Amino acid sequence: MRIIDNFKEGMGLELRKKMQNTEIKTGELAKMIEHTNVKADASAEDIKKLAHEALAYGFGCAVVTPTNVALASEILKGTSVNVCSVIGFPAGVSTPSTKAFETEEAIKNGAQEVDMVMNIGALKSQNLHLLKEDMAAVVNAAKGATTKVILETAYLTDDEKVQACLIAQEVGMDYVKTSTAYGGLSGATVEDVKLMRKTVGSNMKIKAAGGIRDLKTALDMIEAGADKLGTSTGVPIIEELIHIS
Amino acid sequence: MRIIDNFKEGMGLELRKKMQNTEIKTGELAKMIEHTNVKADASAEDIKKLAHEALAYGFGCAVVTPTNVALASEILKGTSVNVCSVIGFPAGVSTPSTKAFETEEAIKNGAQEVDMVMNIGALKSQNLHLLKEDMAAVVNAAKGATTKVILETAYLTDDEKVQACLIAQEVGMDYVKTSTAYGGLSGATVEDVKLMRKTVGSNMKIKAAGGIRDLKTALDMIEAGADKLGTSTGVPIIEELIHIS
Repeated sequence: MRIIDNFKEGMGLELRKKMQNTEIKTGELAKMIEHTNVKADASAEDIKKLAHEALAYGFGCAVVTPTNVALASEILKGTSVNVCSVIGFPAGVSTPSTKAFETEEAIKNGAQEVDMVMNIGALKSQNLHLLKEDMAAVVNAAKGATTKVILETAYLTDDEKVQACLIAQEVGMDYVKTSTAYGGLSGATVEDVKLMRKTVGSNMKIKAAGGIRDLKTALDMIEAGADKLGTSTGVPIIEELIHIS
Repeated sequence: MRIIDNFKEGMGLELRKKMQNTEIKTGELAKMIEHTNVKADASAEDIKKLAHEALAYGFGCAVVTPTNVALASEILKGTSVNVCSVIGFPAGVSTPSTKAFETEEAIKNGAQEVDMVMNIGALKSQNLHLLKEDMAAVVNAAKGATTKVILETAYLTDDEKVQACLIAQEVGMDYVKTSTAYGGLSGATVEDVKLMRKTVGSNMKIKAAGGIRDLKTALDMIEAGADKLGTSTGVPIIEELIHIS
């Protein structure tokens, strides 16, 4: 935090203005970043690095896959950095029961937050009963832990995005999240974040993720209404903040 | 089957020779094809189409994601076409317990076969104990149903492919499978199938999957040692067999 605050005064004019527009203090930006490594081939060393970077930079949480929750938690337990597990990742194709099981286990292994991928095919089939069951299963299994549902906006029409947001809100999800951007899918867009904000109002939080690789994009997302930013490049973003000073 | 057999005599010379080399009867080719739709956004209609095509063409099985197992089984129950569920799909990042839970549920929902994605990060970290636990969890949960482990060769060195094959063999997996090819990853290669065959010998089966989009590639894989072919383009492959006649 200290490093960031020291450099605030020197920021480029445009980005500085953006910081003002978004009304966030510079020191809060790192806290909004969810530092992510959800690669299929992430090694134990990669996860240790992620956790230590999250501590060093003061990121809000470290986001990992279920197989790496215990390891990340070992490092981050008792610190200000939460551990977040993805659920049904990355395709959202597991059943409500499996997503619930995976959620319970992730929390048992030390996760304080879960980012589930919703059942995209259910929405595409307009099986809204199944989509609701899918999200509710995770909310119930999370027992008060922070829950986020990934819509994977790349697959969806605007109408479908709205439908998914409303169901998420109905079942008590804490956040709607744009994307995994896994396997080359397109990630968060300013338009989608705005649409989501418009749909859920002010009583629900939004996480933008996918393709947020520089400070400008990060601030654009916040300006559009994002409360959290999922990115694997949180370190370069903070470094950029330092270097433009 | 009948359609295929009728056209065998008319096949192009090279492909005809390949059919002879592989010593498979033409009528057996469809049975070796595992007709696949594991897309994140597959709709109920897409799955119905898959199941009906599998019946019409006599494919060995229909491969679907866990959320679609019950629907596919409804159509294919009591027929010669098996239902196969992917497990931990596509990234293999769920825990052994979750993979076991997902396997049990898929079988309860009607799957006779399961294709699990192994824990790639465990292998990358040389945590072979976890990799073994990961595969064994699914073999045990499958209780005699056919089990295949997807190595996702695109991520692996040749040494790692051999290690994964040997562990799969040790825990009693029925098949080693090359790839999901999800999200643009490269799929099966002749070299990998040969390496896998050399490693597991004749007591274990091999499924080649990913990038098998024409008859020549299908026959190349069989010639290299594949027992089954996973593809979403089984229909064009069989149609090709018909049209070259």
